[in-house]
Amino acid sequence: MPYKVKLGISARHIHLSQDDFEKLFGVGAVLHPVKALGQPGQYASEERVDILTPKGAIHGLRILGPVRKQTQIELAPADARKIGLNPPVRDSGDLAGTPGVTIAGPQGQVAISEGVIIASRHIHLDTATAAELKVKDKALVKACIKGKRCVVFEDVLIRVRDDFMPEMHIDTDEGNACLAENEEMVEVILNSEKKGD
Amino acid sequence: MPYKVKLGISARHIHLSQDDFEKLFGVGAVLHPVKALGQPGQYASEERVDILTPKGAIHGLRILGPVRKQTQIELAPADARKIGLNPPVRDSGDLAGTPGVTIAGPQGQVAISEGVIIASRHIHLDTATAAELKVKDKALVKACIKGKRCVVFEDVLIRVRDDFMPEMHIDTDEGNACLAENEEMVEVILNSEKKGD
Repeated sequence: MPYKVKLGISARHIHLSQDDFEKLFGVGAVLHPVKALGQPGQYASEERVDILTPKGAIHGLRILGPVRKQTQIELAPADARKIGLNPPVRDSGDLAGTPGVTIAGPQGQVAISEGVIIASRHIHLDTATAAELKVKDKALVKACIKGKRCVVFEDVLIRVRDDFMPEMHIDTDEGNACLAENEEMVEVILNSEKKGD
Repeated sequence: MPYKVKLGISARHIHLSQDDFEKLFGVGAVLHPVKALGQPGQYASEERVDILTPKGAIHGLRILGPVRKQTQIELAPADARKIGLNPPVRDSGDLAGTPGVTIAGPQGQVAISEGVIIASRHIHLDTATAAELKVKDKALVKACIKGKRCVVFEDVLIRVRDDFMPEMHIDTDEGNACLAENEEMVEVILNSEKKGD
Protein backbone atom coordinates (compact mmCIF):
# COMPACT_ATOMS: atom_id res chain seq x y z
CA MET A 1 0.00 0.00 0.00
CA PRO A 2 1.51 3.35 -0.97
CA TYR A 3 1.41 6.06 1.68
CA LYS A 4 -0.98 8.88 0.88
CA VAL A 5 -0.94 12.37 2.31
CA LYS A 6 -3.18 15.41 1.98
CA LEU A 7 -2.02 18.19 -0.38
CA GLY A 8 -1.92 21.85 0.57
CA ILE A 9 -1.21 24.37 -2.19
CA SER A 10 0.46 27.36 -0.54
CA ALA A 11 -0.29 30.74 -2.08
CA ARG A 12 2.39 33.43 -1.63
CA HIS A 13 2.57 34.61 1.97
CA ILE A 14 4.73 36.17 4.66
CA HIS A 15 5.81 35.17 8.16
CA LEU A 16 6.82 38.11 10.35
CA SER A 17 9.09 38.43 13.35
CA GLN A 18 7.50 40.13 16.38
CA ASP A 19 9.81 43.08 15.90
CA ASP A 20 8.97 43.57 12.20
CA PHE A 21 5.27 43.02 12.92
CA GLU A 22 5.24 45.84 15.48
CA LYS A 23 7.12 48.15 13.12
CA LEU A 24 4.47 47.49 10.46
CA PHE A 25 1.34 47.41 12.62
CA GLY A 26 2.32 49.35 15.74
CA VAL A 27 3.50 48.35 19.21
CA GLY A 28 1.00 46.09 20.94
CA ALA A 29 -0.76 45.08 17.70
CA VAL A 30 -1.91 41.46 17.43
CA LEU A 31 -2.64 39.17 14.47
CA HIS A 32 -6.28 38.23 13.96
CA PRO A 33 -6.68 34.64 12.71
CA VAL A 34 -9.22 34.18 9.93
CA LYS A 35 -8.50 30.56 8.99
CA ALA A 36 -6.73 27.66 10.70
CA LEU A 37 -4.09 25.97 8.52
CA GLY A 38 -3.24 22.28 8.31
CA GLN A 39 -0.42 22.47 10.88
CA PRO A 40 -1.53 22.86 14.52
CA GLY A 41 -1.43 26.45 15.75
CA GLN A 42 -0.75 27.93 12.30
CA TYR A 43 -3.29 30.31 10.80
CA ALA A 44 -3.92 32.81 8.03
CA SER A 45 -4.40 36.23 9.56
CA GLU A 46 -6.71 39.06 8.61
CA GLU A 47 -3.66 41.33 8.36
CA ARG A 48 -1.85 41.83 5.07
CA VAL A 49 1.16 43.82 3.91
CA ASP A 50 2.55 45.13 0.64
CA ILE A 51 6.01 44.21 -0.56
CA LEU A 52 7.96 46.59 -2.73
CA THR A 53 11.01 46.20 -4.96
CA PRO A 54 12.56 48.61 -7.47
CA LYS A 55 10.73 46.66 -10.21
CA GLY A 56 7.26 46.25 -8.75
CA ALA A 57 5.00 45.46 -5.84
CA ILE A 58 2.80 42.73 -4.48
CA HIS A 59 -0.17 44.18 -2.65
CA GLY A 60 -2.15 42.50 0.09
CA LEU A 61 0.31 39.72 0.86
CA ARG A 62 -1.27 37.50 3.52
CA ILE A 63 0.48 37.17 6.88
CA LEU A 64 0.55 33.66 8.33
CA GLY A 65 0.68 33.49 12.10
CA PRO A 66 1.88 33.15 14.73
CA VAL A 67 4.98 35.37 14.54
CA ARG A 68 8.30 33.62 13.96
CA LYS A 69 11.94 34.20 14.87
CA GLN A 70 12.70 35.68 11.47
CA THR A 71 10.69 37.37 8.75
CA GLN A 72 10.32 35.16 5.67
CA ILE A 73 8.47 35.68 2.39
CA GLU A 74 7.46 32.66 0.34
CA LEU A 75 6.70 33.33 -3.32
CA ALA A 76 5.99 31.12 -6.31
CA PRO A 77 8.39 31.72 -9.23
CA ALA A 78 5.71 33.63 -11.20
CA ASP A 79 5.16 35.98 -8.21
CA ALA A 80 8.89 36.58 -7.84
CA ARG A 81 9.42 37.30 -11.52
CA LYS A 82 6.66 39.93 -11.49
CA ILE A 83 8.64 42.02 -8.99
CA GLY A 84 12.01 41.36 -10.58
CA LEU A 85 13.31 38.85 -8.04
CA ASN A 86 14.98 35.51 -8.64
CA PRO A 87 14.99 33.88 -5.19
CA PRO A 88 16.53 30.45 -4.64
CA VAL A 89 14.59 27.31 -3.71
CA ARG A 90 15.17 26.99 0.04
CA ASP A 91 13.90 25.18 3.09
CA SER A 92 11.93 27.33 5.48
CA GLY A 93 14.29 29.29 7.74
CA ASP A 94 17.34 28.95 5.46
CA LEU A 95 17.52 32.60 4.45
CA ALA A 96 21.23 33.47 4.15
CA GLY A 97 21.96 35.24 0.88
CA THR A 98 18.32 35.37 -0.28
CA PRO A 99 16.88 38.61 -1.74
CA GLY A 100 15.48 41.38 0.42
CA VAL A 101 12.48 43.65 -0.13
CA THR A 102 10.70 46.54 1.52
CA ILE A 103 7.60 45.57 3.48
CA ALA A 104 4.87 48.17 3.97
CA GLY A 105 2.19 47.98 6.66
CA PRO A 106 -0.38 50.44 7.98
CA GLN A 107 1.99 51.87 10.64
CA GLY A 108 5.35 51.76 8.91
CA GLN A 109 7.82 50.13 6.58
CA VAL A 110 10.62 47.63 7.11
CA ALA A 111 13.47 46.97 4.67
CA ILE A 112 14.73 43.40 5.04
CA SER A 113 18.13 42.58 3.56
CA GLU A 114 17.21 38.93 3.04
CA GLY A 115 14.20 36.67 3.49
CA VAL A 116 12.53 35.98 0.12
CA ILE A 117 12.51 32.32 -0.92
CA ILE A 118 10.78 29.85 -3.18
CA ALA A 119 9.93 27.27 -0.54
CA SER A 120 11.19 23.75 -1.14
CA ARG A 121 8.29 21.40 -1.78
CA HIS A 122 7.94 19.44 1.44
CA ILE A 123 5.93 16.99 3.49
CA HIS A 124 5.14 17.49 7.17
CA LEU A 125 5.03 14.27 9.18
CA ASP A 126 4.46 13.64 12.85
CA THR A 127 7.16 11.59 14.56
CA ALA A 128 5.05 8.43 14.86
CA THR A 129 4.08 8.40 11.17
CA ALA A 130 7.67 9.07 10.12
CA ALA A 131 8.86 6.14 12.24
CA GLU A 132 6.20 3.88 10.77
CA LEU A 133 7.27 4.87 7.24
CA LYS A 134 10.96 4.53 8.22
CA VAL A 135 11.65 8.01 6.88
CA LYS A 136 13.78 10.58 8.66
CA ASP A 137 13.71 14.36 9.01
CA LYS A 138 15.34 16.00 5.96
CA ALA A 139 15.07 12.86 3.83
CA LEU A 140 14.12 13.44 0.21
CA VAL A 141 11.25 11.49 -1.31
CA LYS A 142 9.12 11.69 -4.44
CA ALA A 143 5.41 12.40 -4.58
CA CYS A 144 2.93 11.64 -7.35
CA ILE A 145 0.13 14.15 -7.77
CA LYS A 146 -2.56 12.98 -10.17
CA GLY A 147 -4.43 16.29 -10.56
CA LYS A 148 -5.84 16.85 -14.03
CA ARG A 149 -2.36 16.34 -15.48
CA CYS A 150 -0.15 14.01 -13.48
CA VAL A 151 3.22 15.09 -12.17
CA VAL A 152 5.82 13.30 -10.03
CA PHE A 153 7.70 15.79 -7.89
CA GLU A 154 11.23 14.74 -7.01
CA ASP A 155 13.34 16.08 -4.13
CA VAL A 156 10.42 16.47 -1.76
CA LEU A 157 11.80 17.37 1.66
CA ILE A 158 10.50 15.44 4.67
CA ARG A 159 10.06 17.50 7.85
CA VAL A 160 9.35 15.62 11.07
CA ARG A 161 8.08 17.03 14.36
CA ASP A 162 5.93 15.65 17.14
CA ASP A 163 3.19 18.20 16.54
CA PHE A 164 3.10 18.11 12.72
CA MET A 165 0.09 16.78 10.83
CA PRO A 166 0.85 14.73 7.69
CA GLU A 167 0.53 17.21 4.81
CA MET A 168 2.40 17.98 1.58
CA HIS A 169 3.01 21.61 0.62
CA ILE A 170 3.68 22.88 -2.90
CA ASP A 171 3.42 26.39 -4.32
CA THR A 172 0.81 27.71 -6.75
CA ASP A 173 3.03 27.25 -9.83
CA GLU A 174 3.56 23.61 -8.86
CA GLY A 175 -0.18 23.27 -8.23
CA ASN A 176 -0.90 24.65 -11.71
CA ALA A 177 1.60 22.27 -13.29
CA CYS A 178 -0.47 19.26 -12.15
CA LEU A 179 -3.81 21.11 -11.94
CA ALA A 180 -4.29 19.63 -8.50
CA GLU A 181 -7.00 20.51 -6.02
CA ASN A 182 -6.27 21.59 -2.49
CA GLU A 183 -6.69 18.66 -0.07
CA GLU A 184 -6.30 16.11 -2.90
CA MET A 185 -4.61 12.96 -1.57
CA VAL A 186 -1.17 12.43 -3.10
CA GLU A 187 1.03 9.37 -3.18
CA VAL A 188 4.39 9.48 -1.44
CA ILE A 189 7.14 7.42 -3.09
CA LEU A 190 9.64 6.62 -0.38
CA ASN A 191 13.21 6.27 -1.52
CA SER A 192 14.99 7.44 1.63
CA GLU A 193 17.69 9.33 -0.22
CA LYS A 194 19.38 11.75 2.19
CA LYS A 195 19.53 15.41 1.28
CA GLY A 196 22.98 16.41 0.12
CA ASP A 197 24.09 12.83 -0.59
CA MET B 1 21.17 5.58 -23.09
CA PRO B 2 18.04 7.57 -22.31
CA TYR B 3 16.67 9.66 -25.16
CA LYS B 4 17.08 13.39 -24.62
CA VAL B 5 15.12 16.16 -26.30
CA LYS B 6 15.28 19.93 -26.24
CA LEU B 7 12.73 21.75 -24.06
CA GLY B 8 10.61 24.66 -25.28
CA ILE B 9 8.57 26.54 -22.68
CA SER B 10 5.55 27.96 -24.51
CA ALA B 11 4.25 31.28 -23.24
CA ARG B 12 0.56 31.98 -23.83
CA HIS B 13 -0.19 32.60 -27.50
CA ILE B 14 -2.80 32.49 -30.23
CA HIS B 15 -3.05 30.80 -33.61
CA LEU B 16 -5.49 32.51 -35.99
CA SER B 17 -7.49 31.30 -38.96
CA GLN B 18 -7.05 33.35 -42.14
CA ASP B 19 -10.63 34.55 -41.80
CA ASP B 20 -10.27 35.69 -38.18
CA PHE B 21 -6.88 37.25 -38.94
CA GLU B 22 -8.38 39.40 -41.69
CA LYS B 23 -11.29 40.45 -39.46
CA LEU B 24 -8.77 41.59 -36.83
CA PHE B 25 -6.08 43.09 -39.06
CA GLY B 26 -7.92 43.93 -42.29
CA VAL B 27 -8.28 42.19 -45.64
CA GLY B 28 -4.91 41.57 -47.26
CA ALA B 29 -2.94 41.96 -44.00
CA VAL B 30 0.03 39.63 -43.47
CA LEU B 31 1.86 38.36 -40.40
CA HIS B 32 5.41 39.64 -39.89
CA PRO B 33 7.71 36.99 -38.41
CA VAL B 34 10.02 38.23 -35.65
CA LYS B 35 11.42 34.91 -34.44
CA ALA B 36 11.59 31.40 -35.89
CA LEU B 37 10.30 28.69 -33.53
CA GLY B 38 11.64 25.17 -33.04
CA GLN B 39 9.25 23.58 -35.54
CA PRO B 40 10.02 24.24 -39.23
CA GLY B 41 7.97 27.08 -40.72
CA GLN B 42 6.52 28.16 -37.36
CA TYR B 43 7.24 31.67 -36.10
CA ALA B 44 6.33 34.28 -33.52
CA SER B 45 4.86 37.27 -35.32
CA GLU B 46 5.18 40.96 -34.63
CA GLU B 47 1.38 41.17 -34.47
CA ARG B 48 -0.47 40.81 -31.19
CA VAL B 49 -4.11 40.86 -30.12
CA ASP B 50 -6.07 41.40 -26.93
CA ILE B 51 -8.45 38.79 -25.59
CA LEU B 52 -11.44 39.83 -23.54
CA THR B 53 -13.80 37.98 -21.23
CA PRO B 54 -16.49 39.30 -18.88
CA LYS B 55 -13.94 38.91 -16.04
CA GLY B 56 -10.80 40.40 -17.54
CA ALA B 57 -8.43 40.80 -20.44
CA ILE B 58 -5.04 39.65 -21.64
CA HIS B 59 -3.35 42.38 -23.63
CA GLY B 60 -0.70 41.88 -26.28
CA LEU B 61 -1.17 38.17 -26.80
CA ARG B 62 1.42 37.03 -29.32
CA ILE B 63 0.22 35.53 -32.62
CA LEU B 64 2.14 32.46 -33.79
CA GLY B 65 2.18 31.98 -37.55
CA PRO B 66 1.46 30.85 -40.11
CA VAL B 67 -2.36 30.97 -40.01
CA ARG B 68 -4.14 27.71 -39.25
CA LYS B 69 -7.46 26.09 -40.11
CA GLN B 70 -9.00 27.14 -36.81
CA THR B 71 -8.31 29.87 -34.27
CA GLN B 72 -6.85 28.47 -31.05
CA ILE B 73 -5.66 30.17 -27.86
CA GLU B 74 -3.18 28.37 -25.61
CA LEU B 75 -3.01 29.61 -22.02
CA ALA B 76 -1.25 28.39 -18.89
CA PRO B 77 -3.65 27.77 -15.97
CA ALA B 78 -2.53 30.98 -14.22
CA ASP B 79 -3.32 33.02 -17.37
CA ALA B 80 -6.75 31.42 -17.70
CA ARG B 81 -7.67 31.99 -14.07
CA LYS B 82 -6.85 35.69 -14.35
CA ILE B 83 -9.58 36.15 -16.94
CA GLY B 84 -12.07 33.83 -15.25
CA LEU B 85 -11.69 30.84 -17.57
CA ASN B 86 -11.23 27.19 -16.70
CA PRO B 87 -10.25 25.60 -20.02
CA PRO B 88 -9.60 21.86 -20.30
CA VAL B 89 -6.23 20.27 -21.04
CA ARG B 90 -6.45 19.41 -24.72
CA ASP B 91 -4.33 18.40 -27.66
CA SER B 92 -3.83 21.11 -30.25
CA GLY B 93 -6.83 21.24 -32.59
CA ASP B 94 -9.23 19.44 -30.23
CA LEU B 95 -11.43 22.42 -29.46
CA ALA B 96 -15.00 21.09 -29.16
CA GLY B 97 -16.66 22.40 -26.00
CA THR B 98 -13.74 24.61 -24.94
CA PRO B 99 -14.38 28.20 -23.76
CA GLY B 100 -14.71 31.11 -26.15
CA VAL B 101 -13.51 34.70 -25.82
CA THR B 102 -13.61 37.97 -27.71
CA ILE B 103 -10.44 38.76 -29.67
CA ALA B 104 -9.62 42.39 -30.40
CA GLY B 105 -7.23 43.54 -33.13
CA PRO B 106 -6.45 46.92 -34.69
CA GLN B 107 -9.14 46.57 -37.39
CA GLY B 108 -11.92 44.75 -35.59
CA GLN B 109 -13.11 42.18 -33.08
CA VAL B 110 -14.03 38.50 -33.37
CA ALA B 111 -16.05 36.54 -30.82
CA ILE B 112 -15.12 32.87 -30.92
CA SER B 113 -17.51 30.39 -29.29
CA GLU B 114 -14.72 27.93 -28.53
CA GLY B 115 -10.95 27.70 -28.89
CA VAL B 116 -9.25 28.31 -25.52
CA ILE B 117 -7.23 25.38 -24.22
CA ILE B 118 -4.46 24.46 -21.83
CA ALA B 119 -2.25 22.61 -24.29
CA SER B 120 -1.34 19.03 -23.40
CA ARG B 121 2.35 18.76 -22.65
CA HIS B 122 3.80 17.09 -25.74
CA ILE B 123 6.89 16.04 -27.65
CA HIS B 124 7.34 16.64 -31.38
CA LEU B 125 9.26 13.89 -33.15
CA ASP B 126 10.16 13.42 -36.78
CA THR B 127 9.11 10.09 -38.29
CA ALA B 128 12.61 8.63 -38.40
CA THR B 129 13.37 9.42 -34.74
CA ALA B 130 9.98 8.04 -33.65
CA ALA B 131 10.67 4.80 -35.54
CA GLU B 132 14.11 4.54 -33.96
CA LEU B 133 12.59 5.00 -30.49
CA LYS B 134 9.76 2.60 -31.36
CA VAL B 135 7.21 5.18 -30.26
CA LYS B 136 4.04 5.98 -32.18
CA ASP B 137 2.02 9.13 -32.79
CA LYS B 138 -0.31 9.79 -29.84
CA ALA B 139 1.61 7.50 -27.48
CA LEU B 140 2.00 8.77 -23.92
CA VAL B 141 5.44 8.87 -22.34
CA LYS B 142 7.04 10.45 -19.29
CA ALA B 143 9.70 13.13 -19.28
CA CYS B 144 12.11 14.08 -16.53
CA ILE B 145 13.03 17.76 -16.34
CA LYS B 146 15.85 18.44 -13.94
CA GLY B 147 15.56 22.26 -13.82
CA LYS B 148 16.33 23.77 -10.43
CA ARG B 149 13.72 21.50 -8.86
CA CYS B 150 13.21 18.22 -10.65
CA VAL B 151 9.83 17.12 -11.96
CA VAL B 152 8.74 14.04 -13.90
CA PHE B 153 5.83 14.90 -16.17
CA GLU B 154 3.51 11.99 -16.90
CA ASP B 155 1.08 11.72 -19.83
CA VAL B 156 3.33 13.51 -22.28
CA LEU B 157 1.77 13.22 -25.72
CA ILE B 158 3.99 12.14 -28.60
CA ARG B 159 3.26 13.84 -31.94
CA VAL B 160 4.97 12.45 -35.03
CA ARG B 161 5.28 14.09 -38.45
CA ASP B 162 7.89 13.94 -41.17
CA ASP B 163 8.73 17.61 -40.80
CA PHE B 164 8.80 17.87 -37.00
CA MET B 165 11.99 18.59 -35.10
CA PRO B 166 12.45 16.70 -31.79
CA GLU B 167 11.27 19.14 -29.10
CA MET B 168 9.22 18.97 -25.89
CA HIS B 169 6.67 21.70 -25.19
CA ILE B 170 5.32 22.63 -21.76
CA ASP B 171 3.54 25.78 -20.60
CA THR B 172 4.91 28.50 -18.33
CA ASP B 173 3.28 27.10 -15.18
CA GLU B 174 4.88 23.74 -15.87
CA GLY B 175 8.18 25.51 -16.55
CA ASN B 176 7.94 27.28 -13.20
CA ALA B 177 7.17 24.03 -11.39
CA CYS B 178 10.58 22.63 -12.36
CA LEU B 179 12.33 26.01 -12.78
CA ALA B 180 13.63 24.81 -16.11
CA GLU B 181 15.43 26.87 -18.71
CA ASN B 182 14.30 27.09 -22.29
CA GLU B 183 16.37 24.73 -24.49
CA GLU B 184 17.40 22.61 -21.48
CA MET B 185 17.77 18.96 -22.56
CA VAL B 186 15.17 16.72 -20.92
CA GLU B 187 15.06 12.96 -20.57
CA VAL B 188 12.24 11.06 -22.22
CA ILE B 189 11.08 7.94 -20.38
CA LEU B 190 9.51 5.68 -22.98
CA ASN B 191 6.74 3.48 -21.71
CA SER B 192 4.71 3.20 -24.91
CA GLU B 193 1.34 3.38 -23.18
CA LYS B 194 -1.37 4.24 -25.71
CA LYS B 195 -3.56 7.26 -25.07
CA GLY B 196 -7.02 6.23 -23.89
CA ASP B 197 -5.87 2.73 -22.85
